[in-house]
Order: sequence, then C-alpha cells, then structure tokens
Amino acid sequence: MIADSMVSLVKGSSVIRAMFEEGNRLAKIYGRENVYDFSLGNPNVPAPKEVNEAIKEIVDNEESTFVHGYMSNAGYEDVREGIASSINKKYDTHFNASNIIMTVGAAGGLNSILKTLLNPEDEVLCFAPFFSEYRNYVSNFGGKLVVVPANTVDFNPNFEEFEKLINAKTKAVIINNPNNPTGVIYSEAIIKKLAEILENKQKELATSIYLISDEPYRELAYDGIEVPYLTKYYKNTIVGYSYSKSLSLPGERIGYLVLPDELDDANDIKTAAAVATRILGFVNAPSLLQRVILKTLDVDISENIAVYDKNRKTLYEALTKYGFDCVKPEGAFYLFVKSPTEDEMEFCNAAKKHNILMVPATSFGCKGYVRIAYCVSYETIVNSLSHFEELAKEFNL
Amino acid sequence: MIADSMVSLVKGSSVIRAMFEEGNRLAKIYGRENVYDFSLGNPNVPAPKEVNEAIKEIVDNEESTFVHGYMSNAGYEDVREGIASSINKKYDTHFNASNIIMTVGAAGGLNSILKTLLNPEDEVLCFAPFFSEYRNYVSNFGGKLVVVPANTVDFNPNFEEFEKLINAKTKAVIINNPNNPTGVIYSEAIIKKLAEILENKQKELATSIYLISDEPYRELAYDGIEVPYLTKYYKNTIVGYSYSKSLSLPGERIGYLVLPDELDDANDIKTAAAVATRILGFVNAPSLLQRVILKTLDVDISENIAVYDKNRKTLYEALTKYGFDCVKPEGAFYLFVKSPTEDEMEFCNAAKKHNILMVPATSFGCKGYVRIAYCVSYETIVNSLSHFEELAKEFNL
Repeated sequence: MIADSMVSLVKGSSVIRAMFEEGNRLAKIYGRENVYDFSLGNPNVPAPKEVNEAIKEIVDNEESTFVHGYMSNAGYEDVREGIASSINKKYDTHFNASNIIMTVGAAGGLNSILKTLLNPEDEVLCFAPFFSEYRNYVSNFGGKLVVVPANTVDFNPNFEEFEKLINAKTKAVIINNPNNPTGVIYSEAIIKKLAEILENKQKELATSIYLISDEPYRELAYDGIEVPYLTKYYKNTIVGYSYSKSLSLPGERIGYLVLPDELDDANDIKTAAAVATRILGFVNAPSLLQRVILKTLDVDISENIAVYDKNRKTLYEALTKYGFDCVKPEGAFYLFVKSPTEDEMEFCNAAKKHNILMVPATSFGCKGYVRIAYCVSYETIVNSLSHFEELAKEFNL
Repeated sequence: MIADSMVSLVKGSSVIRAMFEEGNRLAKIYGRENVYDFSLGNPNVPAPKEVNEAIKEIVDNEESTFVHGYMSNAGYEDVREGIASSINKKYDTHFNASNIIMTVGAAGGLNSILKTLLNPEDEVLCFAPFFSEYRNYVSNFGGKLVVVPANTVDFNPNFEEFEKLINAKTKAVIINNPNNPTGVIYSEAIIKKLAEILENKQKELATSIYLISDEPYRELAYDGIEVPYLTKYYKNTIVGYSYSKSLSLPGERIGYLVLPDELDDANDIKTAAAVATRILGFVNAPSLLQRVILKTLDVDISENIAVYDKNRKTLYEALTKYGFDCVKPEGAFYLFVKSPTEDEMEFCNAAKKHNILMVPATSFGCKGYVRIAYCVSYETIVNSLSHFEELAKEFNL
C-alpha cells in the first residue's frame, strides 16, 4: 500500500545507513573497539565545550516561551543577523538577516530551496561522484538529477561534459565543496571557470541557472587551503550550510541558506524559501539550537580540525604505502579509494571480513571506488592499519 | 524564476503567519501589552521546569557525540521504547520501539507519512474546518485534499457527506482531535461511527484507507473529557503527535508517529516512513530534544492545562455574554466564533482597529467564522474584554 515512488527506496534503503546498522551489529559481537567502521560521516570529536555552555546559559537565562517557542519561519532575526555578520567578516561579503534562512540542517535547506525553484521535469546538474541523497532531494519535487560523469584524474569538475549537458531545462547546479565523497576542494580557478561557463550558458539560453553550493564541510580544509566563497564569483549562487560537521552537531539538524540580493528574482526566492520551509513540515529550524549558534559563531574549532587532519595524514600515508590508490584529500573527512578490483562491492565485502566497513561508491555515481569516512578515533585509525595491510595483500597490491 | 506551485503560496503566504507578523508590528507601536494577539497557536506558558532541568542534566552527563550525533533515522531506540511504554500505560495499547518514529514535530511526521503513502492523484479526506496546512502537506506529494463540508451545528464530522466522498482513490483521512480550530473533541461514539464507516468502505472498495490522527492537542482536554486513542477503534490508524503544545516546545520541532503492527502492510510502512524522514531532509528529529523527551515522559502538566482552562472559561463566558456566537471548546486552546457579518474579513478588520487580532476561518475551509487562539496571558484575556465588548456593540450584538 505504500507509494510507488517509495517501493524501490525501501528495497534499496540507504547503503550508507545499512553499513551504519551493520557496524552496530558487528560492535555487539566483537566489541566496538574491534570494528573499523568508516561508513558514516558522523563526527567523532565532541562539540566544542562552548556549545554545551551556551545551551545551559540560554535555558538558565532566557525566557522559556522565547527559547522554545515559534519564531518567523525563516528563524530568529538576531540569529540570522549574527550569521550574516559573521560571513561578512570572514569572506568580505555584505549580507544581512534577510539573506539568511535558518534550516533543519543542510538537507532541510536543500529541500526548501529545491521546492522553491523546481517545476516538474526541470533538470538539476551535479558532478559525479556526488552525495547520493541529491537524487532523492531533486526527485522529491519532480525534478531530474543529471549527473556529469566523474573526472577520475583529479576529481575536479568534468567541464567538457558539463557544458554539453546544460540546456534550457537546467534550473540549477549543485556542487559540494569541500567534496563528499572525494575530499577534493575546488580551487578559485576552478570556481571561476564554473562561473564563466554558467554566465555564458545563461546568456546563450536566456535563463537563470542557480548554483547551489552545499557546504557542510567548509571549515574542514587542511594544509591552509582556502575554500572560495561562491557568491563572490557567480551572482546566482545559493549557499547551503550546516553546523553538523564544524560544531559536531549532526543530530541537531541546524543549518542555514544564504540567499543573496543579487539572485535573479531574489525577493520571490527569499519569500518562497521561507514558505517552503513551513509547508514541507520543517516549520522552522530547532529554536534552542538557533540561539546556541548565535553564541558560538566565533568559536575556535581548530583543535577539532587538527584531529581530523591527523587521521587524514595517518590513513592516507598508510594506505598509499600499502599500495592503495587514492586522491589526497584536502578537505572534509573522507578518503576516496580506488577499488583494487573492478567491482567495489567485492572489495567492500572482503574488507568486512577484516571488520572494516567502507561505502561502495556506486551510490555516489562513481563505480569502482569506495569511500572511507575517517571521522573516527585515532585509535581506530591506528588499529585498523594492520587490517588494511592484510587486505592489500589479499588483492596483491 | 520560482516554481509555479510556489507562486500562489508566496502571494497568499500564510494568513496566520501574516497576522503574527502584524501582531509584532502593532506591538512595536502600541506596546505588547496593548495588542490582543489571538492569531497564533504559540503556547504562552513556559515549558515545565523538568524540560530545562533535563537539558542541563543531559549535556552535563551524556557523551557529546551521542547527544548531538546521528542515530537511526527513526530516532534513538531507547527514546522510542520509552514513548511506546508511556502510551501503553496511558491507553492500554501494546506498542514497542518499532512502532514509533521520532519526527520533526507533527508537521514533519505528517509529511513523512504522506510521502510514504500517496501516489499522485490519491485523495485525502479531511473535515472542515481543518488546519489549513493539510492542503499543502497533501499537495507536496501530488495528492488531492478533499474537504468534507463543515457540520456547523456542533462541528462534529459531517458523516453523511463523508460517506459520499469516499471512493477508490481515497488513500487516507486526516482528523485532528482535539480540533484546531474549533476546540471540539470527538467522543468515543463519534470515533466508533467513523471507524464503522471506514471499515465498511474498505470492504466495499477492497482498499486500505488509512486514518491519520493528528494529535498535538491530545493532553489539552478540559472538564475531565477523555480523548479516545484511535488505534483501538480502527486498525488502519496512524497517530501523529507533537510536544509543541503539551510541553510548550513548538519551536523545537519534536514529535513522533505511531505506526501500529495492525496496519495493512505495516512493515513496509514502518520502513518507508523512516526512509521518507531521511529523504525529505529531516534526516532525524533533533537529537538533544529526543533525549529530553525520554526524561520528561511522565511530567505533570496539569498546571499548564489549568492556565489554558482559566483563559477558556473567562473568554468564552465574556464573549457569549457580549452576544457572540461560539462553540464551547472542550479541548486545544482555540475558540471558534461565528462572524456577526457574513464576510469574516470585515469582522477581523474591525477587530484590528481595537488591536484585536483573530484569524479568518476561510483559510480553515469554513467561511463566516474566526479563530481566537487563547494561549496568551490571562492579563491579555482580561484586558481584551472591554475591547471585545465595544466590538460587539459595533455589530449591534
């Protein structure tokens, strides 16, 4: 009796989530410390201490009906103003509260903006490999996700194919920078090229093509690499952000959309995105967490980033030493590894016998690769190494 | 450039919300205490003190990555088990964790279950007057909301019209008990009659018709009136619940769905509803608040209910004395008043000149009435009375 559109989803469910459940199962049998679960992007570092301090300060000092009550669907005005100022300070932009809509994580924000923009049959482009949920988010609103094939040389956008796939039905392009699942960061030169192509296509087709930049990993950039702020390069840019990774709050569902005044039809989009947030049933981003964000805007998270960086270096160095082929990640907390055998499911299954859980990348639109989420304890990384070494031997690397 | 489906929504936006913003505007001019804003169902009583105590206890004592991290999309297992036990104790049911899915408020839950069930063109019935967002929730998934005309005698369901409107395309019926906007509670006899009609129609049409009971006001029942637990009367019942009103947490977006094992295709529905929660971008209900619910399941909220009850009695008695015609509300925190003039917008505009804000009921599918949300301070109620009296005189009541 369930909806036709849900039947295959129920069958497939999420590969990532299935792995997560499998990890829990193995942990019950072998003990958590003997399972090397690299399947889920669930931060292992605690939220900065300022988060819990802010929570306590707020519930002790602010009015309950204010902290836990309704506010405008777009979020508390002071929180949105605070976020706008913080972005302005960091990236030399000029946003104000009206450009920010608080969202139920980045996933909530993406759904709100896609609901806002898409007519049935509209096309949304993304670059493989891509976060597999984009496919569902786009199809929620009758849109069609068009996948630009991967550039497996360096996992930057495949611009040649991209240009060919843009047409009059292209309403939006989603990018994810730093990238899940590759860990690649698109440089300023890449962003400029992307903007140039989009500008030209907009003119040629006399349409508006919105660039949706999904940025939950913005702060997770290593080796001093800068992540360009895209609204400065292309005026039809919408940014989706989440505090899930930077503040280790993925369960809390708190993030925001940036809707610049420079967007074509900016006013309609701003109003519609707030309405979409309401009618999709989010209503508003969780209220207490919105207040917490206002108090933790400038918290130092360098210690947390250092934890991931150490994991990254250790795992990348070991895996390449053992003979695995992987892109050196510059951001996020993922390692994208070429499967030593064509069918990466075979590789994942072999790894499972060593209690190593990885995600096959077919679900990210890039067959023959696996994703390793290294947001786990350093101990897990270190203890997993001998198992990776054995796994490499099994595949004669 | 926004989606066609959003154009009219942006134009209309929400009447209720517009009123809320208007209230804020008037408050800036005249002072909050001189505006009688009865527009929004935003509880005025603080959350029980146990809520903030639980928040502090949790952030002090539980692991950050657990409290703020991802869990299964359906929610923490112990929270779901706790809720199931609490329902069982109160209503003599037999649920377990697998029957509960934690949701982003009742609005999130309704969207998840409608995504789960609806094929395009499927029909969903509801009884006028109804919470106006149902129309959007159903149309989010291509369904068609079919409104059973109001029974304006006592605002119980209009069963005669209901029976006529059920057909092979009827996939679900949404009811709201206690009712927003009338404050009416459907008695056991009414529920039995509803169940009987649905059972017969299921047999006659050889389909499954799901009864979705939206129950954010369950605990707000006065004069000792009992609100029947619907899963006990009709096996294809799905309950949507929210803590927005009972614990005064509307901004926090925390609620749940009850999916009984007795549902036709129960297993598919349970899995699909969790998947729907994920792919609609909710991902999971806010994590800290889930943990809070586990600690506040049996909190005594009778003091809060007494506050609403006092408001209810004072306002109902005064308004009827002034000559207004309204149903005596048995539950929720709304008073449904017949407009003394055919066009209730005229009445609302006249009220606005007395700084009284009410919601015209055309948006609830019941022209000629207005909704007064009395979840405001007792002082506001008392101070508003002379203004209501003048308003009555203006309409020669």
